[in-house]
Amino acid sequence: NKKYTIAVLPGDGIGTEVTPVAVEALRLAGSLEGIDFEFKEMLVGGAAYEATGVPFPEETLKAFLESDAVYLGAVGITKKMPSSDHLPKHLRPEVGLMRIRRALGVYANLRPITVFPQLLEASSLKRSVTEEVDFMIIRELAGGLYYGKPRGFGINEKGEETGFCTEIYSSSEVDRVARIAFDMAMERRGKVCSVDKATVLESSRLWRKRVTIMSEEYPEVDLSHMLVDTSGMELIRYPKQFDVLLTTNVFGDILSDVAAMITGGIGMLPSACIGGPGPQLFEPVHGSAPDIEGEDVANPLAAVLTAVMLLRYGLKEEAVAKRIENAIFDTLNEGFRTRDIPTPGAKIVGCKKMGEEILKSL
Amino acid sequence: NKKYTIAVLPGDGIGTEVTPVAVEALRLAGSLEGIDFEFKEMLVGGAAYEATGVPFPEETLKAFLESDAVYLGAVGITKKMPSSDHLPKHLRPEVGLMRIRRALGVYANLRPITVFPQLLEASSLKRSVTEEVDFMIIRELAGGLYYGKPRGFGINEKGEETGFCTEIYSSSEVDRVARIAFDMAMERRGKVCSVDKATVLESSRLWRKRVTIMSEEYPEVDLSHMLVDTSGMELIRYPKQFDVLLTTNVFGDILSDVAAMITGGIGMLPSACIGGPGPQLFEPVHGSAPDIEGEDVANPLAAVLTAVMLLRYGLKEEAVAKRIENAIFDTLNEGFRTRDIPTPGAKIVGCKKMGEEILKSL
Ligand SMILES: CC(C)[C@H](C(=O)O)[C@@H](O)C(=O)O
Ligand SMILES: CC(C)[C@H](C(=O)O)[C@@H](O)C(=O)O
Repeated sequence: NKKYTIAVLPGDGIGTEVTPVAVEALRLAGSLEGIDFEFKEMLVGGAAYEATGVPFPEETLKAFLESDAVYLGAVGITKKMPSSDHLPKHLRPEVGLMRIRRALGVYANLRPITVFPQLLEASSLKRSVTEEVDFMIIRELAGGLYYGKPRGFGINEKGEETGFCTEIYSSSEVDRVARIAFDMAMERRGKVCSVDKATVLESSRLWRKRVTIMSEEYPEVDLSHMLVDTSGMELIRYPKQFDVLLTTNVFGDILSDVAAMITGGIGMLPSACIGGPGPQLFEPVHGSAPDIEGEDVANPLAAVLTAVMLLRYGLKEEAVAKRIENAIFDTLNEGFRTRDIPTPGAKIVGCKKMGEEILKSL
Repeated sequence: NKKYTIAVLPGDGIGTEVTPVAVEALRLAGSLEGIDFEFKEMLVGGAAYEATGVPFPEETLKAFLESDAVYLGAVGITKKMPSSDHLPKHLRPEVGLMRIRRALGVYANLRPITVFPQLLEASSLKRSVTEEVDFMIIRELAGGLYYGKPRGFGINEKGEETGFCTEIYSSSEVDRVARIAFDMAMERRGKVCSVDKATVLESSRLWRKRVTIMSEEYPEVDLSHMLVDTSGMELIRYPKQFDVLLTTNVFGDILSDVAAMITGGIGMLPSACIGGPGPQLFEPVHGSAPDIEGEDVANPLAAVLTAVMLLRYGLKEEAVAKRIENAIFDTLNEGFRTRDIPTPGAKIVGCKKMGEEILKSL
């Protein structure tokens, strides 16, 4: 049997509820295709901070380097730690997540927005708007406003406190993520829409310039540019227009949550963080969701769809990926839903039960 | 008769089509209440660049200082100038707009999101989601990523080109716009939701800290904080939760366009830029819209609703404001719609005809 080692970081809040579902789906689907997984469970985020005093322990990093892919549940505040505001920056759970992304060298975050026909009624948007939507958001993940320096706190000439960050992109940072977008478009419908705010931001002007230069290597791909404010509107007005939507770190953070609403919500969105030299990182788009933590009502589909991405983009095990995808499809066809994606006549179940149904379908 | 002088800047693209509608509505409604308006038409944006070589001529600035309020149609690219990328920054139309805001010292951009019951079917969102939505976005308008320094282009240690901007806020910049939000909430349903990305951005941490401090002066107001990505989702999932949504310059730019889709689109959104020492600035949220420019299909309602804001917040002439508001209501009741806000059984008309119907209702 082929064998893969997966570093598993359940993380915080509902991360610990949805991750076991994804792990069991991987294990079962793998065994059906003659593949063994070894799962190494590690700490990260608030959970790691509580156990070890830091949100991203050395041990966890070591486990990464010995694994074929990294699976992360969710990182953030929890019922027990309802705010991280009191912690110095380097100890906050979210900063643990940013460190992981950095440590793995991943720079492109793929967030597919695909509407399941069974869930058309679960969206706030009209069926006519969401039907057949299928696009990929590619969010730059290693640069921009999230990491740029200088950043910190200061005192200005009037003696007032200030807080500041730097939005900066270099040519190679744009080029490498643009390449992923163009390559992806070649395998899809051949369209890239690059989103920036080039009318106002110098960082966006460089972004637009480099994306345009990169597009010359891809004459088959149709490149367009859209301002970020317009794109926020267009995602809701007419999402079918998008094939690959390429954008910066901070814009991608916002736009992918907006786009989540097309699919019935953030409980449906998986993501893959790729581009690094070693193992790649896979995480649902949702956070730790302290409001529903511990109640067994979280939607595990984002987590399971993330396992699909791990198989597809991380391990290139398409057959196993397809098996899990089909099992999700069957489970939805049987009418099972978590409460965040209600549809008329559905059977509303909890996180665990939804997981069991997926395993049954497998 | 009372008399006001209004500096009118039709600007670019559809700005020149919708502005006359707003001006005529002001003139007629004013005369019915014994108020005279003198309109001084000035150039700005691409139109000013073509005529004078700069997007914000000295003359225009002078006219501002002699006026009681400034009305702006739209600024941006046009059919004739389909991109401003080739122009140096200080000559770009959008930079003209940013200069105007700066010159007037306005720092709070009020963007009301109000759903007209007649237009419930015009939104991409389901009626159950948009019904009775009524909140106010307050976008910081004079600081943050739009103006922070240093900004520009450089070469990094690897010899690569870079583009960079600074997101910076000082205490007083946050305090003054927060005060507007809290005051507004006192006149509304008493709730402020402040949107930031405090988990990642230092500028947002200062923002959150100052907003929290300011809230102590308003014990009757219920303050909550929301991360910007979450807010992008919540605006679509359950917009009724919001009363006053306070946010930064760049986040407000994106979120108000997302929120536009609740009301049936950006053709419905007015805005007021307030807080300056002199005349305040009033502008529809939409841009120059080169795609529909010159076709007499633009929706003039955002422009006319902007005139209402000018009366309400700029001149404190509530009686005139109400007259125009009622005329819009009647026109919608009669079934007139522009093509961007179609509803079943509506009479689709152009920009001019819509304007005529509003005047008739007045
Ligand atoms: C937790 C936070 C740092 C993170 C981000 O903003 O990148 C999250 O919101 C996400 O989108 O993955
Ligand atoms: C034209 C541009 C500078 C402007 C902005 O981003 O502020 C516009 O998008 C707006 O929202 O008023």
